This record gives sequence, structure tokens and C-alpha cells, in this order.
Amino acid sequence: MAAMKEIIDQWLRDAHAMEEQAEQMLKAQAGRIQNYPELKARIEQHIGETQSQRGRIERCLESRGTSTSSVKDVTGKLTAMMQGLGGAFAGDEVVKGCMASYAFEHMEIAAYKTLGAAARTAGDEPTARMCDEILREEEAMAAWLSDHLESVSSTYLRRESADSSAAKR
Amino acid sequence: MAAMKEIIDQWLRDAHAMEEQAEQMLKAQAGRIQNYPELKARIEQHIGETQSQRGRIERCLESRGTSTSSVKDVTGKLTAMMQGLGGAFAGDEVVKGCMASYAFEHMEIAAYKTLGAAARTAGDEPTARMCDEILREEEAMAAWLSDHLESVSSTYLRRESADSSAAKR
Repeated sequence: MAAMKEIIDQWLRDAHAMEEQAEQMLKAQAGRIQNYPELKARIEQHIGETQSQRGRIERCLESRGTSTSSVKDVTGKLTAMMQGLGGAFAGDEVVKGCMASYAFEHMEIAAYKTLGAAARTAGDEPTARMCDEILREEEAMAAWLSDHLESVSSTYLRRESADSSAAKR
Repeated sequence: MAAMKEIIDQWLRDAHAMEEQAEQMLKAQAGRIQNYPELKARIEQHIGETQSQRGRIERCLESRGTSTSSVKDVTGKLTAMMQGLGGAFAGDEVVKGCMASYAFEHMEIAAYKTLGAAARTAGDEPTARMCDEILREEEAMAAWLSDHLESVSSTYLRRESADSSAAKR
């Protein structure tokens, strides 16, 4: 059981670092968007959800007697994944930014599915329920992006081909 | 219309490079997996689909009178995203590998949704239909991974906590 606890604690710290990274990226993205108001508003809503998720993970770690201070412990592989997707957020092109957001949401979905299943295997139902709750918020954001990818793309294409400076952001 | 064609050609070249990257990563992942036979088999099936997708994109670019040779033209942002996710594939931990695959599949789903919508906006129905067809294959792979993330995670946790060398791969 000690080994199970250690793995789940590590995955919770990974999730905590992932939400910190998500907040940074979403803020950068929302700050740049000028001409896609619906997208900007949905991203801003998700920034609030992301901050709340980070808080819930901190309280979960505390209730397990585990420190949240050492987020540098995050595994190198997850960091590499986040940095790669983060690079796409840093650009100024709205379509690639949406693609990166959509992929990042699914990295989060995968994280909470695997973490929830692990917590259940270890018999930690409160942690599993927290994962289910966050999972639903990530799935809602992913579904919204899925529903809007096509309209962002066609709006971008029409503006860009009309040589409008409004297209990119 | 010339500007629209140029954007869609670029996005098709991006998709071509994305499939090349996908093939490399899936092959590396399948080659490492030893004790998750169902996962290995599904990845191997998707390697075949990925090769076929690359071929379809090449024929699509040819039919549009566009070269496929200059895949180095791929936008820097997409390369960064792929490399980040690729880093996670390069490790030896099956759960993070599944998370990376799942996120990568959704980057592909987003790519074909945005490209299909762009092709339709430009009135290029054959390209849009090719995107729809590839999209269905990517969605099927993503759904399979979604259905298996939890069992991979709980199997990993049980093996790892039993200190089994079979867990990681």
C-alpha cells in the first residue's frame, strides 16, 4: 500500500503542475485573442475552473499528508509534453492555439481518468471522486472547443484570405 | 482564392508532417510495450492506418498541384507541440505513454476538423471528404484509448506496487 500511495501522490503532484501550466497558457492565450470574443470568454471561464482545480488538488494532497511544495518533482515526460503544447500557445495564430488547447484538455482528461482509476484501485474514494469532478469540467471545456473548432477555422480562413489583420488573433 | 489555397496547402503539409511524426512515435511505443498485449495490438493497427493517411494526404496534395517534398515547411508551433508529446513517447512508462497518445490523437482530430472546415469554406469538397474519413479513424483510435486508459492505469498500479518488473512496459 505504501508503494501505491507514493505513485498516486506523484500523479497528484503531476496534476498540480499541469494545472499551473494550464493557467499560464490559458491566460497568455486569452490576453492575445482580440477578434474571437466567444472563444476568449470560454477560455476566461476555464481559467477560473483551472484555479479552483489546483486548489482542490492541494487540499486533496494535504488530506493525504503530502506536501504540495515540491512541484519541481513533476516527471520529466509530463514537463516535455506541457512545454511542447505550451509552445503552440505562445504563438499568435488562433487556429493552432485552439488545436493546442484541445490537445492539452485531452492530456488533462487522460490524467484524471488514469488518476481516478488508480485512486479507486487503492481504495481512496474521496480522491477518485475529486478526479471525476475535475474530469467533468475538462470534458465540458473539450466539448466546447470541439464544437467551435470548425467555426474558428472557417472564420480565420475567410478573414486571412480577405487580408484582414483581424484573422490571426 | 489564391490566399485560401495557400493556407490549405500549408495545413495539408502540416498534417503530412504530423502523420510522419505519429508513425515514428507509435512504432517506438509499440516496440517497447511487452506486457500490455491489447494496447500493443491496437497501436500496431493504428500504425497501418497512419501510413495510409500519409499516402492519402500525398495524393490530395498532388491533385491540388502542390509538392509534398518540403515537409520542413511545417510551422514551428506544430513542431514544438509534436516534439513535446514525442518526448513522452520516448520514455518507458506505459501510463504517460497512453496519456501522450491520447493527447496526440486529439491534436490530429483538431487538425482534420479545422482543415476539413477550411476546405469546405474554400469549396474543395474532395479534400473535405478526405479529412472526414481520416477524422473517423483518429476518433476511433481516441475512443479505444479512452476506453482503456483506466484499465492500463489500474493494472500498472497493481503491478508496480507488487514491485513487478512487468508494470512499466
